[in-house]
Order: sequence, then structure tokens, then C-alpha cells
Amino acid sequence: MTLPPEFSLIARHFRPLAGPGSLDLRDDAALLTPPPGKQLVLTADAMVAGVHFFADDPPDRIGKKLLRVNLSDLAAKGAAPLGYLMTVSTPRGTPDTWFAGFAAGLAQDQTTYGCSLLGGDTTSTPGPISLSLTILGTVTPGQSVHRFGAAAGDGIWVTGTIGDGALGLQVALGKLQDNVGFLLNRYQLPQPRVGLAIGSIASAGMDVSDGLVQDLGHMCRASGVAARIAADSVPMSGAAQSVGPDWLETRLTGGDDYELLLAIPPSNEAALLAASSAAGIPVTRIGTFHSGAPEVMVLGPSGESLSFEKGGWSHF
Amino acid sequence: MTLPPEFSLIARHFRPLAGPGSLDLRDDAALLTPPPGKQLVLTADAMVAGVHFFADDPPDRIGKKLLRVNLSDLAAKGAAPLGYLMTVSTPRGTPDTWFAGFAAGLAQDQTTYGCSLLGGDTTSTPGPISLSLTILGTVTPGQSVHRFGAAAGDGIWVTGTIGDGALGLQVALGKLQDNVGFLLNRYQLPQPRVGLAIGSIASAGMDVSDGLVQDLGHMCRASGVAARIAADSVPMSGAAQSVGPDWLETRLTGGDDYELLLAIPPSNEAALLAASSAAGIPVTRIGTFHSGAPEVMVLGPSGESLSFEKGGWSHF
Repeated sequence: MTLPPEFSLIARHFRPLAGPGSLDLRDDAALLTPPPGKQLVLTADAMVAGVHFFADDPPDRIGKKLLRVNLSDLAAKGAAPLGYLMTVSTPRGTPDTWFAGFAAGLAQDQTTYGCSLLGGDTTSTPGPISLSLTILGTVTPGQSVHRFGAAAGDGIWVTGTIGDGALGLQVALGKLQDNVGFLLNRYQLPQPRVGLAIGSIASAGMDVSDGLVQDLGHMCRASGVAARIAADSVPMSGAAQSVGPDWLETRLTGGDDYELLLAIPPSNEAALLAASSAAGIPVTRIGTFHSGAPEVMVLGPSGESLSFEKGGWSHF
Repeated sequence: MTLPPEFSLIARHFRPLAGPGSLDLRDDAALLTPPPGKQLVLTADAMVAGVHFFADDPPDRIGKKLLRVNLSDLAAKGAAPLGYLMTVSTPRGTPDTWFAGFAAGLAQDQTTYGCSLLGGDTTSTPGPISLSLTILGTVTPGQSVHRFGAAAGDGIWVTGTIGDGALGLQVALGKLQDNVGFLLNRYQLPQPRVGLAIGSIASAGMDVSDGLVQDLGHMCRASGVAARIAADSVPMSGAAQSVGPDWLETRLTGGDDYELLLAIPPSNEAALLAASSAAGIPVTRIGTFHSGAPEVMVLGPSGESLSFEKGGWSHF
């Protein structure tokens, strides 16, 4: 009895990614025994060619980006990766090499970040490649971090450097030079901050994916506080510094940073710095939450309030 | 501070669907305390306009179908629905009424089947509407049902009637008449067999979504057995009977039944009939598994082996 091509494709490319609970992808559902004494953190993201990546991007990078944008969400909640389900909709005639590359990227990242495939679905589409991934992570009860919870007086902190992804998009569009390739790489491949132990340290946390100003606004609204940050204190990579001050708005409002944005009570600053050291993930304080209606104030070098045309990226 | 339209859309249409663990969709991840003493069953399906539904189908029906195809998978594993994450990619300019209708369909089915929204993602797409849904269910450890596990001597059983969905597709394509609308409805809106207590009764189970012959073939391969069924014993609706014998191959190999296909050891037949009675879900024995290389033999009225051009639906 011959298998339809869909099933041979799953066997060749996706079965090697399957881990505990996946039943080796031989069933139409996964069976997971939840780790005892843990809560589950669950999040899902969709990625569409022409919106979130270019259709002719290398497929291994597409696979990695799909997994990493979700790992970034888990990292922002203080959760450890467990496993994921994935749906893959591709045009008929998508070559086997595309699936091989896509799976190879996932395989590498599964090793790097410690998680495996639980299940999913493959279908055809008359449109662009459309992907979705639902990830499960675990957290000790009471230690998960949320968008809400930031309090007046908490410091506003970010990991790494901000704005590289948005500048990298400008490079990809040919509007900016980047001889070293650092910015382009930051745009093309997120580096999720998995491993920073924020569980009992941050009063709120989320990843910066839609632009620092917009995402900080979300945290303000969810927490019922206002935020004030100093533009000069937002950490910049060397490459971002070299493009000059004209790109300030792009850096602070553009997307694709995949850094963590954290609210840290002053009493937890030492613990954050210790966690930063332990994980090798740099953190920088960029401002303070204070009481008031939810808003984000960005102060320029002379203490003046800067205003930007757009707050961040929206799909509609 | 003004919210981007994407967030207002989520607040208006999807927040009312959010249940326990969703954090009211105010965070970028859900936080779920797994029900103590249970295992989780997880499955995901993608649905794309032009492949799994028509772009101008009523949006409430699209929402219901998306949830129900996943509920059908849970039912086939003997799992009770718990919650789901969903990704929704729509063309820019999709009217608000579409989202309202889509969410209304989901809301109705959440009540009918007892589950709620945990989280997800909304994005734009330059292509057709692309949807994915990952559902979580619970099962008592040791009572989940899989594709594998069917043994020689087990009876082959199905719920409901087979072939209506495939005939309904022919009606939708204008190739078949259906004055009552029964067949078309069966194609357009699955009726997942949630509530049939197969947990300690079936040795294997799956839903019939890609065609009876193909799906029975999957069960044979996964279980390492052969199957023999009698075409005459495959239950037909009145509407399917009225289209005549020319449509036999369509009925047995076409998709979209969303009935359950079960392997039942003879000693559990009485228990299955009792469960069928209790749930009000009819079951019919259509054949027997026997030892041998995985294959599906369909016997005609005179005991001759029938052969079909296609085994079922494949995406590639």
C-alpha cells in the first residue's frame, strides 16, 4: 500500500524532530504527561511569506525564525521550553529541498534551546507559505512573569541592544549600508534570550518585537502605570551607533528586536545583575515606571519630550 | 495613547472567547495549571481558504469548522476538550464583520463543546485567509486511544454515516443534486463525535477526515495489521442512498466525514454499544482486522475485492 506524498514528507523531514510526547508523529495527536509541580506557559505565532520573511529566504533560517520568535515569548515569561506543535502550509510543488532545509534549521535550534516537536499539520496553499507554531514551556507556580505587574518606582530594563532589527530591515530594503552584515543578521535571525532567570526578579516582562515604544506602551496599559525613558540610555550596538542620530526614531519604534523588556523593583536590581552575569546576557536600565495614565515618554538629550510619528508595528 | 487597530480587534472579538489560563488575552502567553492526574492530548490543524473552505463561506461556519476539525481529533483519542490557541492571518481590509462572525461561530461552539480560547496571534497576509488551531484535551493516564494498537480479530467500527461529506463537496461543485441540503451541510460543518467514551474500550481510534479507505490504511500501517471491510456494511445516510451506487468510490475514499474509526476487541463490543447508547452516537461494525501486511481490502456484494483509483486525499 503506497503512502500519499504528504505522509512520506512528514516521515522524512519532520519525524527526526519529534521528541517525548510526540508518539513519533505516528498518531494524529501528541500525548504529554505534564511535568509534575509545574505550570504550563503557552503561546502561538503565525509567520507568512511577504510579511514576516521573504519567500526566497533560506528555509533553514525560516524554520529557526519561526521557533525563535516563540522561544522569545517564553523567555519573557521566565519559562523553560518544553515542546511545540507546528502547521506548515506551502504551495504545491514546493521542492523537497525546501522542507529539508526548513527541518534542518529547526533541528539545530532544538539542540541549542532544548525542545522538540510534538505534532502539527502540513497542508497545501494557493497563496504564500504560511506557518504557525504553538510552543509549550514550564514554569514554577508563582514565578511566571507577565505584561501586567509593573509598579511605580520599578526600573525599566532591556536586554542586549535595541533597534538593530529595524535598521537591518532598512538594510534589506537597500535604504541603509551595512558592510559587516551585523544589522542584517539581527533582522533576519532573532536571538531569543532563553536562560535569563527572571522568574522571581521581574515584576513584569515581555519581549520587544513590535518596537520598544509600542511594546513599552503595552506594558504600561496592562500594568496601569506610565513610563519615562531616556533616549540616550537605550543601548545601541556599535553598528547602530555608526548609522548616526537620524535613525533614532527607527531604532526606538521599529520591530524585530526580540530582546526582553523588564520591570525590575529597585530591591531586585542586584539579583537581576547576578542573573545577567550567570546567563551572559547584558541588561541595561533605560528609565522608570511612575504612577499616572498609561503613556510612554521618551526624553531627548536636553530632557525634552520626543514625539514619534508611529508607535510601532501593527498588522491592520 | 492610542492602541494599534490589531489590539482593538483582539479586544473586541477574541477577548470574549478567552477562558481560564488565557489571562484575559492581556499577556503574550497563556498560563495553564494542568488538571492534576491527567495527561494532555495536543493536536493542531491548519485551514486555508481555497483548500479547506471557500473564501466567501459565512465566517461563523469557518470558525466552527476550524474548531471542530480539531475537536474531532480529540474525540478520536478519547480526550475531553480543555482549551485552544489559534492563529488568524487575513488580508488587509478584511471587514470587521468577518471577524465578528468568525468569533460568533467560535463562541457558540465553545458553549456546545466545553472549551475556551487560551491565546494566539493575528497577522495580515498577502494571500488567502490562513488559520491554525492547536487544541489541548485531557485524558486519564492509560486511557488515550491511538492509531496504533489495533489487533487481529478486532472489529472495525465507525460512528454515524460515511461518505456524506464527500458527496456534499460534489453538491457544492454542482456535480450532484441535493434538494434537502443534508449532504451539503455535512460537507460544510463537521459534527465532531465528542462525548463517546472510547477510553477503555477501543484498541485504536482516529477520525475519518481524508477518506475511509485511506484513513483505515493509516490505522493498518500504524498497528501492523490488515483490514477487510464489506462495502455494503458501511453505513450510509438516506441522502447518500438516494444518489445511487455510482457514487460508491466517492463515499468510501472521499474526505470530510469527521466520524470516528475504531478498533474494538470482541470482548468490548457490549461496552461500545452501551457507550454509543449513553452518548446518542450510533456505531456500526464494517469489518475485521486480521494479521498480515498492512492493506485495506474492500469487498463488494458478491465477495469480490473492489479496487479504487484513489485511496484518499493528499495535499502534495
